[in-house]
Amino acid sequence: MRTLVSELSSKVGASVSVSGWVHRVRDLGGVSFVVLRDRSGSVQLVFDSKPDVTLESVIRVEGDVAANEKAPGGLEVRVASLVVVSKAAVDLPFPVNQDPGKTSLESILDNRMISLRNPAILSIFRLQATILACFADHLRSEGFTEIKTSKLIGTGTEGGTGLFAVEYFDTKVYLTQSPQTFKQVMIASGLERVFEIGPAYRAEKHDTPRHINEFESLDIEMAFIESEQELMDLETRILAAIFSGILQRNQKDLDAWKATVPNPELCARIPRVSHDEAKEIVGRETGKKVYEITPEGERTLCEWALKGAGIEAVFVHGYPRKSRPFYTYPADNNRTRSFDLLFRGLEVTSGSMRINQYDMLVENLKAFGLNPDGFSDYLSIFKYGCPPHGGFAIGLERLTQKVLGLASVKEATLFPRDRKRTRP
Amino acid sequence: MRTLVSELSSKVGASVSVSGWVHRVRDLGGVSFVVLRDRSGSVQLVFDSKPDVTLESVIRVEGDVAANEKAPGGLEVRVASLVVVSKAAVDLPFPVNQDPGKTSLESILDNRMISLRNPAILSIFRLQATILACFADHLRSEGFTEIKTSKLIGTGTEGGTGLFAVEYFDTKVYLTQSPQTFKQVMIASGLERVFEIGPAYRAEKHDTPRHINEFESLDIEMAFIESEQELMDLETRILAAIFSGILQRNQKDLDAWKATVPNPELCARIPRVSHDEAKEIVGRETGKKVYEITPEGERTLCEWALKGAGIEAVFVHGYPRKSRPFYTYPADNNRTRSFDLLFRGLEVTSGSMRINQYDMLVENLKAFGLNPDGFSDYLSIFKYGCPPHGGFAIGLERLTQKVLGLASVKEATLFPRDRKRTRP
Repeated sequence: MRTLVSELSSKVGASVSVSGWVHRVRDLGGVSFVVLRDRSGSVQLVFDSKPDVTLESVIRVEGDVAANEKAPGGLEVRVASLVVVSKAAVDLPFPVNQDPGKTSLESILDNRMISLRNPAILSIFRLQATILACFADHLRSEGFTEIKTSKLIGTGTEGGTGLFAVEYFDTKVYLTQSPQTFKQVMIASGLERVFEIGPAYRAEKHDTPRHINEFESLDIEMAFIESEQELMDLETRILAAIFSGILQRNQKDLDAWKATVPNPELCARIPRVSHDEAKEIVGRETGKKVYEITPEGERTLCEWALKGAGIEAVFVHGYPRKSRPFYTYPADNNRTRSFDLLFRGLEVTSGSMRINQYDMLVENLKAFGLNPDGFSDYLSIFKYGCPPHGGFAIGLERLTQKVLGLASVKEATLFPRDRKRTRP
Repeated sequence: MRTLVSELSSKVGASVSVSGWVHRVRDLGGVSFVVLRDRSGSVQLVFDSKPDVTLESVIRVEGDVAANEKAPGGLEVRVASLVVVSKAAVDLPFPVNQDPGKTSLESILDNRMISLRNPAILSIFRLQATILACFADHLRSEGFTEIKTSKLIGTGTEGGTGLFAVEYFDTKVYLTQSPQTFKQVMIASGLERVFEIGPAYRAEKHDTPRHINEFESLDIEMAFIESEQELMDLETRILAAIFSGILQRNQKDLDAWKATVPNPELCARIPRVSHDEAKEIVGRETGKKVYEITPEGERTLCEWALKGAGIEAVFVHGYPRKSRPFYTYPADNNRTRSFDLLFRGLEVTSGSMRINQYDMLVENLKAFGLNPDGFSDYLSIFKYGCPPHGGFAIGLERLTQKVLGLASVKEATLFPRDRKRTRP
């Protein structure tokens, strides 16, 4: 019967069997210490003589649990017998038991099959799992229904650019950039409130710490709302639920990156500024003339929010029409009923009220240079009765990155895909 | 302030505002009845004169809630004022308020944007959302971590056949058939227990009620187990959790299809038979000589299980080596440590212990005619210490189909993709 490392503190004096990976080996002559790692933590094993084990081998030991103030965690297992379950080769391509900050991102990703064993690196994905769980749980508590929609489409929702083509039997289809169309079908179907967690694709030739070509999109759509303010209200509650969940379950993972999450109660104080106000703020804070909000401007806005509201986040709403997709509800000739959430200097969410009137949508398609004839499936949603609605999407990897303060979004992606990286 | 239909029973005598879709209109001269549908149910609205509304229009009415024994649900709203929020065109392409059994599958799928409004059709996806939630919740309760892995890979885990190619910048990648490789990386990373919910792709030219080319795979991998029996134990607990959840949350959705779920307590009694025993049973039950287990044989096995165990499900284990992927742990020269779950006549799960020894895996790759040099990323998982493990995958759409007794898996897919269907 296997005992997990986390269960050892209640077994002092008892004989146990523990299993896991050889994390570290220290031979002091006469006595050897091995740090064993399992899914719940790590513990020091004490051997009377040098054991024949290599780093990362999977072993099983039987032994007595003893209290020892000098051991990490105050406990050790004095080993009576050892079985090597799976022996690791000695040419380990990545230093699993060292600080990953000393290794380049390229080396971490080239050796992804092994670098994920590094406890700090692995902690990123324990925390990411909490984001996934809290996002879904919170939305279910507000009456949202989870949906799963196709990632293969005939044409793009944003008009066909930036799509990866798929050879599909005798024809060609494309990987979706977003489940936008399908979310709108589903709110109009009568579900009214839906969410989807799924991959999304952008065939853009970016090469920045903020971009990946495949990302996990946390997507929401909500009907019978009157304003984009209600969407920001919802996102505020979601963020508070996620931050609460992380505080409850992932303190060790935060510690591994010396990271903190905002106090969940502060989410309700995230400032909401219009795009014009945002430019004024950036101008005031930097003393420079501001024509558009650059990534640097986004960082300035978050610093401004931290000073005023105590939380490094800001909603910017009312983006210009030309910078948002055709389905975005216009506020006037120039502005839209849209918003972004900037968190710790990075856009992690984009959302808006959507056009729900057939005629207005046809007109807007034309204004965007798109042919309404190519959107007949999409337009049928609105031709046959569609309530007012809106929605948004949170980038899972970007939110993970910013919670932990990682330099690149690729660090927050298990198997990132960029222009050059398609393996492992 | 909007009141949902489900909240009306506590508002008899009060004035309310309700919003939703016009489901049915009946004009009796002098008085008109309109059935209004929202996300929580439907209610009869009473108008003094014929309202100017079309089927599927979205309306908002103010009126008084009254008890009326003759009204469906025993309640009605006597309308004082009406606003048409979004008017539907009169050429509705699909009969939203009729029994979908009277419409062909082709018409249902061709008109998917509208057919999803049909309450019976929509109920399929409310129930599917419960499967998703219960699957994830149960696994979290057993210490599993949710992962999200890339759907774009350089080569296939099963050896490169049956893959859809993606034009990826200047190179070509493929859509994954399964997250098999990535699940194995993650259990070996130290998470030990992982699950993933994500799309999977099979470029197979099937045209049957059991096959779609894109499906949602509920994937599990678990380390430090000794036998495939432990995987069947786990699946038994997951199924019981899903069936319990459906019974608690989806009775109306079951009723819409005159469907029942098995008593969750019976899951523990699902028979486990070897592949050889399964052939014997089919032979005995049908009086025919059995060379392999056909789809018809799978149905026979489930009927046999229903007679003996009271549940229409059976685990078949020990499949021949030639019929399972190269990573399946062999039991002997001919058999594998694998299993399928057949439920109501259909394979809904495939799983196995996996080879965790580097040398055995290299040998098996060769035996399958594959070149180990093309699997160096994969092999590194096992070269550097990997515990014994196994896993399985449940097809979300197939399980949904069989719970509700639907004729085709495509009915249980929001936007199915098959050889000919790539829209909407």
